[in-house]
Amino acid sequence: MFRFPSVLLHRRKLSSAASHSLTLPLSHPIYLIWGSNTGVGKTLVSAGIAAASLLSSPSQFHYLKPLQTGFPSDSDSRFVLTKLRQLSLRRNPRVPLSASHRVLNVSPAVPELNPLAAAEEGAGSSELLCKTLYAWEEAVSPHLAAEREGLAVKDSVVLKTLGGCFEEVAARGAGKERSEVLCVVETAGGVASPGPSGTLQCDLYRPFRIPALLVGDGRLGGISGTISAYESLKFRGYDVVAIVFEDHGLLNEGPLMSYMRNKVPVLVLPSIPKDPSNDLLEWFESSHCIFSNLKEILLSAYFERIKKLHDMPREARDIIWWPFTQHKLVPDGGVTVIDSRCGENFSVFKVQKTEVIAPLFDACASWWTQGPDATMQTELAREMGYAAARFGHVMFPENVHEPALNCAELLLQGVGKGWASRAYFSDNGSTAIEIALKMAFRKFSVDHGLIVDCHEDAPNERSTELMVLALQRSYHGDTLGAMEAQAPSSYTGFLQQPWYTGRGLFLDPPSVFMHNKTWNISIPEGYCWESLKGESITFASRDGIFHKSRDKSELATVYSSYISKVLSGFRGTSRIDHLWGLSCYVVIQGAGGMHMIDPLFQHVLVRECRSRKIPVIFDEVFTGFWRLGVETTAELIHCVPDIACFGKLMTGGIIPLSVTLATKAVFDSFMGDSKLKALLHGHSYSAHAMGCAAAVKSIQWFKDPCSNPNITSDGRLLRELWDDTLVHRISSHPTVQRVVALGTLFALELKAEGDNAGYGSLYARPLLQKLREDGVYMRPLGNVIYLLCGPCTSPEICNELLVKLYRRLEEFNRCRN
Amino acid sequence: MFRFPSVLLHRRKLSSAASHSLTLPLSHPIYLIWGSNTGVGKTLVSAGIAAASLLSSPSQFHYLKPLQTGFPSDSDSRFVLTKLRQLSLRRNPRVPLSASHRVLNVSPAVPELNPLAAAEEGAGSSELLCKTLYAWEEAVSPHLAAEREGLAVKDSVVLKTLGGCFEEVAARGAGKERSEVLCVVETAGGVASPGPSGTLQCDLYRPFRIPALLVGDGRLGGISGTISAYESLKFRGYDVVAIVFEDHGLLNEGPLMSYMRNKVPVLVLPSIPKDPSNDLLEWFESSHCIFSNLKEILLSAYFERIKKLHDMPREARDIIWWPFTQHKLVPDGGVTVIDSRCGENFSVFKVQKTEVIAPLFDACASWWTQGPDATMQTELAREMGYAAARFGHVMFPENVHEPALNCAELLLQGVGKGWASRAYFSDNGSTAIEIALKMAFRKFSVDHGLIVDCHEDAPNERSTELMVLALQRSYHGDTLGAMEAQAPSSYTGFLQQPWYTGRGLFLDPPSVFMHNKTWNISIPEGYCWESLKGESITFASRDGIFHKSRDKSELATVYSSYISKVLSGFRGTSRIDHLWGLSCYVVIQGAGGMHMIDPLFQHVLVRECRSRKIPVIFDEVFTGFWRLGVETTAELIHCVPDIACFGKLMTGGIIPLSVTLATKAVFDSFMGDSKLKALLHGHSYSAHAMGCAAAVKSIQWFKDPCSNPNITSDGRLLRELWDDTLVHRISSHPTVQRVVALGTLFALELKAEGDNAGYGSLYARPLLQKLREDGVYMRPLGNVIYLLCGPCTSPEICNELLVKLYRRLEEFNRCRN
Repeated sequence: MFRFPSVLLHRRKLSSAASHSLTLPLSHPIYLIWGSNTGVGKTLVSAGIAAASLLSSPSQFHYLKPLQTGFPSDSDSRFVLTKLRQLSLRRNPRVPLSASHRVLNVSPAVPELNPLAAAEEGAGSSELLCKTLYAWEEAVSPHLAAEREGLAVKDSVVLKTLGGCFEEVAARGAGKERSEVLCVVETAGGVASPGPSGTLQCDLYRPFRIPALLVGDGRLGGISGTISAYESLKFRGYDVVAIVFEDHGLLNEGPLMSYMRNKVPVLVLPSIPKDPSNDLLEWFESSHCIFSNLKEILLSAYFERIKKLHDMPREARDIIWWPFTQHKLVPDGGVTVIDSRCGENFSVFKVQKTEVIAPLFDACASWWTQGPDATMQTELAREMGYAAARFGHVMFPENVHEPALNCAELLLQGVGKGWASRAYFSDNGSTAIEIALKMAFRKFSVDHGLIVDCHEDAPNERSTELMVLALQRSYHGDTLGAMEAQAPSSYTGFLQQPWYTGRGLFLDPPSVFMHNKTWNISIPEGYCWESLKGESITFASRDGIFHKSRDKSELATVYSSYISKVLSGFRGTSRIDHLWGLSCYVVIQGAGGMHMIDPLFQHVLVRECRSRKIPVIFDEVFTGFWRLGVETTAELIHCVPDIACFGKLMTGGIIPLSVTLATKAVFDSFMGDSKLKALLHGHSYSAHAMGCAAAVKSIQWFKDPCSNPNITSDGRLLRELWDDTLVHRISSHPTVQRVVALGTLFALELKAEGDNAGYGSLYARPLLQKLREDGVYMRPLGNVIYLLCGPCTSPEICNELLVKLYRRLEEFNRCRN
Repeated sequence: MFRFPSVLLHRRKLSSAASHSLTLPLSHPIYLIWGSNTGVGKTLVSAGIAAASLLSSPSQFHYLKPLQTGFPSDSDSRFVLTKLRQLSLRRNPRVPLSASHRVLNVSPAVPELNPLAAAEEGAGSSELLCKTLYAWEEAVSPHLAAEREGLAVKDSVVLKTLGGCFEEVAARGAGKERSEVLCVVETAGGVASPGPSGTLQCDLYRPFRIPALLVGDGRLGGISGTISAYESLKFRGYDVVAIVFEDHGLLNEGPLMSYMRNKVPVLVLPSIPKDPSNDLLEWFESSHCIFSNLKEILLSAYFERIKKLHDMPREARDIIWWPFTQHKLVPDGGVTVIDSRCGENFSVFKVQKTEVIAPLFDACASWWTQGPDATMQTELAREMGYAAARFGHVMFPENVHEPALNCAELLLQGVGKGWASRAYFSDNGSTAIEIALKMAFRKFSVDHGLIVDCHEDAPNERSTELMVLALQRSYHGDTLGAMEAQAPSSYTGFLQQPWYTGRGLFLDPPSVFMHNKTWNISIPEGYCWESLKGESITFASRDGIFHKSRDKSELATVYSSYISKVLSGFRGTSRIDHLWGLSCYVVIQGAGGMHMIDPLFQHVLVRECRSRKIPVIFDEVFTGFWRLGVETTAELIHCVPDIACFGKLMTGGIIPLSVTLATKAVFDSFMGDSKLKALLHGHSYSAHAMGCAAAVKSIQWFKDPCSNPNITSDGRLLRELWDDTLVHRISSHPTVQRVVALGTLFALELKAEGDNAGYGSLYARPLLQKLREDGVYMRPLGNVIYLLCGPCTSPEICNELLVKLYRRLEEFNRCRN
């Protein structure tokens, strides 16, 4: 009986939910009612709240039961309806009640519908609207019922139907006070009971992240069950606003209140009569006060949330200092309130006709870090809670812990395979680069005899000035060491960092792009390429650009001559004695404008450095871990570095961690008898457990075809995410200068002149504004714009993004003309 | 009935557990048996595993029941004993069984002990040893029984008793094969059911972090209950090695296996006969195969763990590159395997007589980051899981999310109160300093007319070279910009960073220390202090040093003259036009050797900078957030900065995040019509949600007297953690040069000469080695050693640390002589 399940998790279910259906209106309060177990009285609580709302003053109450099994003999909707009618008749003064019940979808196994199902009765000043969204006959878990009865229903469809109901709540509540309309959605079973597809309900409903009311368990063992259920909700990002449970005389409220202190109010309901003939009306009356209390808690939490969401933009503008942001240029209404994220989507607060929380595809992958889809995010969150609970943070030197060791192993077997022998952890791309530079310095100094023995601390510093060989338009981070390795730009002037001098020789690399369906190489000035004559520098397909055979081409010789010329010229004319270290973005220069460097150039450059004993650093912070369709872009340029830096996607993008990998030879240049010869660079959180745990999970997840359907079966490539035809069409569009599509990246440069071009340009702003209305969040690099999805994002979603982009380009073109 | 509990959480319970009692032997497998609810059959599973062990081959089985209520009519120990005897009689060939049951502590309410309780029977080749540790009469939750019956028992005592039982397991198992002895500890109720003190059992047993077996729930709702219980265990850092549950015909294994895929094996037991007269022997026989399977899983997980723990040091040495570590000097056996941490203690793997996991007080607070005790760690872990699930990471510019906004508010109301108006988030102390420097540059440039209007990008860079005014022996981080702001040292030479030039004027500050029970000021050369004559520069108490009245003293004038002299001399002789920015550790220079700078000097220095319009930066990365007994050390020197950097303890030390706070005037110097005038510095994880959420929780937790008992009632000070008498004694010890005790820090410099002194010295190593045997983990700064506790650590624990230190100093002295 010991067995692992053979079926794969149905992990694609959520992603195909069209994002527009996942909008949650905030015009009136909506709550999810969860149970810490089955049979704890969720429906009684729903009915109690309904009574507290409807029978005290004229109002509207929506009761939604998305998943009902045992139907029609069990029908929670009908129960609520019946009880409310009975209770309304007892009340004095009576609040007239109109009540209805609709069943939207039933399984074929359900017999002819009970007339009650569609009943609607009288007009009252209070209105109860009950809906059952999906109903199955058998009284088992929905996933079993769905399987057995043939009413299978995808998660995306459940969510869409529920979203439709929310729209109706907003529509029918239009014109009413916020507090006059209340909607509760009652889940089935416990918090982690499966829905019809097998997805746990706490995962199923997560995209809406509706605030929660948890019905606890007052029985023996109920303290534990209630706390665990609460934790399962919290660990999926839900906010629980109240816990209520039936008293069983066990004083469960003591420990529960102690645990929930300052977090969540805990309310206790009187014991429920167990006699099945009891109509519970007396019980409801005696619980009235608690339900009123509960209703007030729900309302006040709702009002507090609305107020907070409205206040946040102003408060943020008052006290926050955003990076890379000219605060004076942030327009009114220009601050986006991000309420949460679910996979690739932000959930943002918007005020349209009414306030809503709406999904927005994070097409800049939050500064190129993000990878997880919704399923992976849940998995990573669990990992984060575990790592924090197990390790918190533990210091690293001369210590070892499982996450760090496992992470180092995965790195050396993966992106460092075949060359790296050591992993040096730090916090971000910039620190990883500073470390890489220090490593390269030492290696170069040792190789070139600048350090003869380990006790000779410093050579004559005046006569030896080490510099970096790097590329124009590269960006490696914002700390001074990383800045010094990049060419002068807007980021490096006196206004930004007076200490910057630019300690490098910066080569101007040839770039590659698609225009009019054809890939072209653009060779800058300074190259002698007359010799090419007949040789074509266009390619019909991207594969041609990356083909190994180009190594033998005439162009390789052109590149090689250029590099030699520049290097020897520099040596001849300068007071500087030595050059060292090559640091470059591999394949794509991100911040510099999403330029794709000719991979052949990189290949030749590495070869030229090798022959001169210049250590080679690859900056793969942006490009590593499938960003460009391969785990490491070293695969794309057919050579390996001495040192490489990784970050961003390494942890799935959810937590800061970076690593600098190095060869044995680099490591050995720091070995000696003195501590002073060691690499004396460190950060408090070197190899912190949470970061390493996230990296272990992400590295494995991204490359495993079982968890990432975009991975080819041999685990070496991402399948093509961007539709060829659409890419071609966009590359031929009159507004478009060039296109790059590779891995998870689709970038384009808008045709622009003068002030409209360059990093400071606002040219793309109206286009991106429109795309934001389409639910796509992009940020420009001047007149360059890009879409960045995650390694697990489905091609269908990528396709949708391209279609939206194309439409807006058409419009942009019309407006321009 | 809606009420928050009035009682405070008993949150000190765990910390007083003497650490030596928390050692877990690994000589043989020990497992915790948890239930996902009450009544799911934990005891049957325990008995089943016992049978699979004892009745197949000669072996030893320890069954421990720490908490038993309903005693003696309910006794899980007795049940296991009885069943095993019965089963052993049925087996053919029979394995002779000797069995015993002891009850260690019973509540006064329990009647005369049943003779069975102490029974021991015959000598067999298999041995069953059952123990009930604490027993209460009433069949209710242990916390209620303890309250009602008068057998109250503290968490620390439960753990100590349990630790004693583990010692016995190791002792009685000595000489036996690893697989011949098995011990299970059966918990009471569900995973989060309260123990006798009210602490949830999953928290109570956490210091041992014993691997877990979870008994799931096969009933309706059991999928949810099992998953939630599993998550509660994971979120406390437990490893669950198997899940087993009774079949109720509901196919719960489907969704459970799907959820647990690649994580935990799920086993299904046949239905248990419900007839109370059934002796279950048939059921045990029919389940034999599953229990054997289960036993094998437990054994193989145990062997895998042992192997991993043994292999880790070698693997780490092979592939990891530690910061600040000369790998050649790491001795064999010098790698510490950290299995987990619980509050201030690491749990480390050690091989003594047998392998153990033993606690080790993290007295360097893991590079000065750590603050949480066990309770706070659990709280933070929950927060991390929630923040990861709700937000993952979301990019920051022009966006706002709750954790970032709340964190900024708390910072401005707390450490920035009265001066700061903006929060700029980054990743670590080093980046926070780089940002602070950029801010100070700009402010200085604007104030001194170097930038006339915002379009004038760069002044003549040759004529204007900006430098930092800083202190000797300061350390601000390892990225180049932060390095440039510190004086030359072993960290800055050509070997480490050839680009370093030291762009500062470095003042030599007076320091303060205790020697021979008296506080002294040490004034370096270069100060003209003849004028002091009669004025004393010793203090009987630390308070005198921090007293505001010193501002009017003659010494203040001496300091002021020194600063003026150095500044004017520098200006006169150098080609450099401008000085800017003061950057200094406030009060304590950590990495420089735990030097306490005379607070009066700092105060005067700030005043002198102000008068010259030099922006003042406080580097509070190490000193902020109660490290020195106040939330911000600005309080200690009676003045505020223009810019300040915080990190480390800000998040409780569990996750990287730093912040640079600034005044409105600093912020305004970046306002303009061009983006190019904005501060163009950022990191991918600026204000990442998990970091900000941890900071919000930690900032509040540390300063709230309800959660931190060390905080004085007005919330402004930590109470004194280091015992005065002991501090005095140590300061008079013949081995000790000087002592500093302030807030969470106790530091001392060992008297040393020649090579024994300084950062590279190994002089303190044998002393620290001995302290490690005492369970105290310290790292030296050359001949300076220190103890660093958390803001919530109890003075009793600090006292214990001082006592251990004193003893070892005595021994050190004897060996030296």
